[in-house]
Amino acid sequence: MNLPGPLERLINLWGKFPGVGEKTARRMVFFMLSQDPGWARAMASAIVDAVDKVRACEECGAITTDDVCVICSDNSRDRRKICVVETQEDCVAMEQSGVYSGLYHVLGGKCSPLDDEEIPKESLDLLKKRIYRLPANEVILALDPRIEGDLTAFTVQEALKGMGVRISRLSYGLPVGGSIGYADRATLHVALEARREMEEEED
Amino acid sequence: MNLPGPLERLINLWGKFPGVGEKTARRMVFFMLSQDPGWARAMASAIVDAVDKVRACEECGAITTDDVCVICSDNSRDRRKICVVETQEDCVAMEQSGVYSGLYHVLGGKCSPLDDEEIPKESLDLLKKRIYRLPANEVILALDPRIEGDLTAFTVQEALKGMGVRISRLSYGLPVGGSIGYADRATLHVALEARREMEEEED
Repeated sequence: MNLPGPLERLINLWGKFPGVGEKTARRMVFFMLSQDPGWARAMASAIVDAVDKVRACEECGAITTDDVCVICSDNSRDRRKICVVETQEDCVAMEQSGVYSGLYHVLGGKCSPLDDEEIPKESLDLLKKRIYRLPANEVILALDPRIEGDLTAFTVQEALKGMGVRISRLSYGLPVGGSIGYADRATLHVALEARREMEEEED
Repeated sequence: MNLPGPLERLINLWGKFPGVGEKTARRMVFFMLSQDPGWARAMASAIVDAVDKVRACEECGAITTDDVCVICSDNSRDRRKICVVETQEDCVAMEQSGVYSGLYHVLGGKCSPLDDEEIPKESLDLLKKRIYRLPANEVILALDPRIEGDLTAFTVQEALKGMGVRISRLSYGLPVGGSIGYADRATLHVALEARREMEEEED
């Protein structure tokens, strides 16, 4: 069936999302058309609004609508710590966990030789300058627990050599709520390697 | 983290899609912002375009940008058969299978007592008038293979009583490419009930 042009175009554009095939795109578009058109219109204008207004913080690269993001301009945060993440989305995930109160630095790229991808050099320069300026005494690498994250962590570590900051990385191990039976071999391996001694209970 | 307003609004709107939680909505929105802004803008305008231009065919209720859809205005199709589907999307699925060459009727609703939903009366009236006018001699019910589809099929059958058309329904059974081991009990039951005698091979 030849779908009407406007529909076909929308479904094609929709299919560009990762993990969204033609069928899912069709489902979503048909769902949208079956709802109150006000919702679809609101979405269209919200998309344009987001594209127009959202940008990267000049200090850390996180999402913001101003020059400097709410985190960088919040003086109650611990300005001695910088948490390095790969993407703006990772920064949001860390923030929503509510366990971290320092600053961030968004790399905006990772080391991935297979995809011919590298950390943008300007991003590393910006990080170094900021560590010096604040000054920060700890850099926490919150990078994906996989090979590319390892390479990225190593590259950042190399770049910061001699700056006199402590560099740490989020621990590998079993995800909370998971089960041993479902854990993959590599995770079990690192969880075993990084096992922690339990303190004896006091009587 | 308080996301910037424009982003928060877009993520909220996005989360209205069925099966899309807040995390998926966030992923999709961040992905969109990481791409060429031209794509996002094209999507926004395609949404408005689709909402403005796509509507229901006056004859059968399928999607169209004109008064009458391409199927209804195609004289090479078999105008004695009407395939009744629940939604416009189901009509697209049937068409894309390429196995049907008759006309359609989109009910635009189903019998679902639990959700207090019924087939719109006007839709049944339209169907009856069309059967009479064409005239059609067969109505094929392509309704979901579940209780609500059964009720809907029964209701359409009742409505068409005495009109002298053959009414059939797509067969129940094992999906092609599936496996007996994974088939659920109800499907095995209907597949057994509806088993077909195999012809003896000729020597």
